[in-house]
Amino acid sequence: MQESARVTADGIWTDVEAVRSQAPLVHNITNYVVMNSTANALLAIGASPVMAHAVDEAADMVGIAGALVVNIGTLSPHWVEAMHVAMRAARDRSVPIVLDPVGAGATPYRTRTVHDLIADVAPTIVRGNASEIMALATAEATTKGVDSSEEASSAVDAATQLSRQLDAVVAVTGATDVIVDGDNQVQLGNGHPLMARVTGLGCTMSALSGAFAAVNPDPALAAAHALVVGAIAGELAAEHAEGPGTLQLHLLDRLHDVSCEQIADRLRVSAATSGTSAPA
Amino acid sequence: MQESARVTADGIWTDVEAVRSQAPLVHNITNYVVMNSTANALLAIGASPVMAHAVDEAADMVGIAGALVVNIGTLSPHWVEAMHVAMRAARDRSVPIVLDPVGAGATPYRTRTVHDLIADVAPTIVRGNASEIMALATAEATTKGVDSSEEASSAVDAATQLSRQLDAVVAVTGATDVIVDGDNQVQLGNGHPLMARVTGLGCTMSALSGAFAAVNPDPALAAAHALVVGAIAGELAAEHAEGPGTLQLHLLDRLHDVSCEQIADRLRVSAATSGTSAPA
Amino acid sequence: MQESARVTADGIWTDVEAVRSQAPLVHNITNYVVMNSTANALLAIGASPVMAHAVDEAADMVGIAGALVVNIGTLSPHWVEAMHVAMRAARDRSVPIVLDPVGAGATPYRTRTVHDLIADVAPTIVRGNASEIMALATAEATTKGVDSSEEASSAVDAATQLSRQLDAVVAVTGATDVIVDGDNQVQLGNGHPLMARVTGLGCTMSALSGAFAAVNPDPALAAAHALVVGAIAGELAAEHAEGPGTLQLHLLDRLHDVSCEQIADRLRVSAATSGTSAPA
Repeated sequence: MQESARVTADGIWTDVEAVRSQAPLVHNITNYVVMNSTANALLAIGASPVMAHAVDEAADMVGIAGALVVNIGTLSPHWVEAMHVAMRAARDRSVPIVLDPVGAGATPYRTRTVHDLIADVAPTIVRGNASEIMALATAEATTKGVDSSEEASSAVDAATQLSRQLDAVVAVTGATDVIVDGDNQVQLGNGHPLMARVTGLGCTMSALSGAFAAVNPDPALAAAHALVVGAIAGELAAEHAEGPGTLQLHLLDRLHDVSCEQIADRLRVSAATSGTSAPA
Repeated sequence: MQESARVTADGIWTDVEAVRSQAPLVHNITNYVVMNSTANALLAIGASPVMAHAVDEAADMVGIAGALVVNIGTLSPHWVEAMHVAMRAARDRSVPIVLDPVGAGATPYRTRTVHDLIADVAPTIVRGNASEIMALATAEATTKGVDSSEEASSAVDAATQLSRQLDAVVAVTGATDVIVDGDNQVQLGNGHPLMARVTGLGCTMSALSGAFAAVNPDPALAAAHALVVGAIAGELAAEHAEGPGTLQLHLLDRLHDVSCEQIADRLRVSAATSGTSAPA
Repeated sequence: MQESARVTADGIWTDVEAVRSQAPLVHNITNYVVMNSTANALLAIGASPVMAHAVDEAADMVGIAGALVVNIGTLSPHWVEAMHVAMRAARDRSVPIVLDPVGAGATPYRTRTVHDLIADVAPTIVRGNASEIMALATAEATTKGVDSSEEASSAVDAATQLSRQLDAVVAVTGATDVIVDGDNQVQLGNGHPLMARVTGLGCTMSALSGAFAAVNPDPALAAAHALVVGAIAGELAAEHAEGPGTLQLHLLDRLHDVSCEQIADRLRVSAATSGTSAPA
């Protein structure tokens, strides 16, 4: 069976219902910019967010969480220390780890920090834009601040290499999203261009991936399902938004009330057609 | 006179007008997640918010403030140090202190920190969910991250114990809010279920309690009035909201234009009927 | 030619189009309260925001940025250290620096910190409210938290003194905005009173000034253009807002779609008529 055939509206809906009924606790060590918006996105989809970065409580919080989301958007040394502590605790307790390498490649400090993190503990899912994924895999890409200077499709080789190296699922998001799990790839076509004009929607996708990984033991499906739901919520929001401000709010409303029918009507999934994958 | 008879629309309205005309400076040492939303809520109701956590300025900022709000949502050691400094300065200058024990009971670090804070300086008002209040009073409750795993009514005994111990007003918020002041209790029935899907609305209630405590020397009334106004703004917002995203925005709009008539029409106050209280 | 005659709708529009097409990277070391809202404002106008405060990456991030925005709203020692590092790097690489002295005058720590910053490196543009500008220039003004206790017009002498001392453009914002560049002044009359009820819109104006300074080498014009665009977006937003909550969202939408015609129709610029300026 092709990898893309595994991503179905029914499977996505099963996860949405599981998040809503189980309300998994998602422990975020994330950046200052998106703390409010990702907490709201997690609440809207039905999860229970907590933000905790003190070294003294990072391991304890992981111990009661269904997933850990580590996001390096606004780094400083104490936070990095807590990230290491939390990731080790998550590995030891088999709590899935989502890593969002915000701005990797933009500065040596940021690239070095994220390389140290993945060398210490392999995450379950890495979600980044093309530049960030290339910076993780090759240490050669450059990133323009936190916005990608590359297309997702051009990062598929890097994502494949990174996925094999870490034995992790790598999600490269952009106009089209690509989920890479070793040699398997899926391309996801949902979303709306206006979403790029709202800060932190990539971070929101990482946080949602944590919520879905808390209820679905298959990380490739968890990541794919989270990205589809987030992107479809964005599409639905864009239909009534007048710009990026109202889009952000409607997106939270749609995460809260997205239906199985809306997912089935809009789901755009295909086998990946670029990079190292064979033609579909 | 029953405690519940003291909470009237006229009394609430007097405080709203006092906040709007005096624009009290409310000094917040609060968590990263809610800084923007609580600052906006304070501005919307007519207060003047300031966020300042440096040890070097905490006491000076308290010195020009009408109230201090301390919220432990995203703790780290330097912040805890500033909380102690600010609370001592507030005690020395008779500035009312609102303490929000976010996530107390979720990790030992969080529980220990908040116990240290209240052992150092007794706050004027404590506002938390049931799990948090029970963790403060009994050190036995467990909290699921920052969301309560208990009903407010089951925390009334703990709140009473805590209120006596600290000589403080304890507000337990949930589907129904209970304000406990020693042996007196009031139950407040306003609010809307969708409010639980917006991050930080509990923190907003704590911040509003600070604004009202700055203009009303009776902390039990200040807390009750703040919670009623916040909850009624939430009800009004929910009537036009499509979900948690739009609810958050409309709530700010309604804090800004809530009227005496709306408060009088909607106020739901009663004597507490659970815990240690006698039947009404 | 009078200074005010230089601020034209065509000139403003040229900058808006340059921001939209060049998407300059704006490096912000700013306060926790406004990180999300200023990042969104920068994205809405077409710029690319990055927030980075680690001492270890501050200089590197400045090296790829089109402008640096330093905002002292929620100070602590490590952040101040990064501000110094970033400002020196910006000076050495001729990257324009916008300084927002939030709350200068409210506490000795805040006033001292900002005096140290400007003594170390002169910013290109200073944007503050009247109290803050007076605290920078005279060290005698007092600030009520982060809200001004003075009118912009009363700060023109202080702004002129500060502008000469630093060889910088000083923008004093309030009901009317005044841009001071040495002996030249311009008064800008756009905006809406409801904007004062949204937290961080002053900080947004500083961030927008950074975006415009990245594309316009004349800092007086860059600051004036940014303030006009922000204020007109606020006016347009207020027409459809029901309060401060919806205003904030519509403002982002209008930053995203503001047109040359809207700017031409609404631009209110005049020669300054107060302080040390000659009558118009």
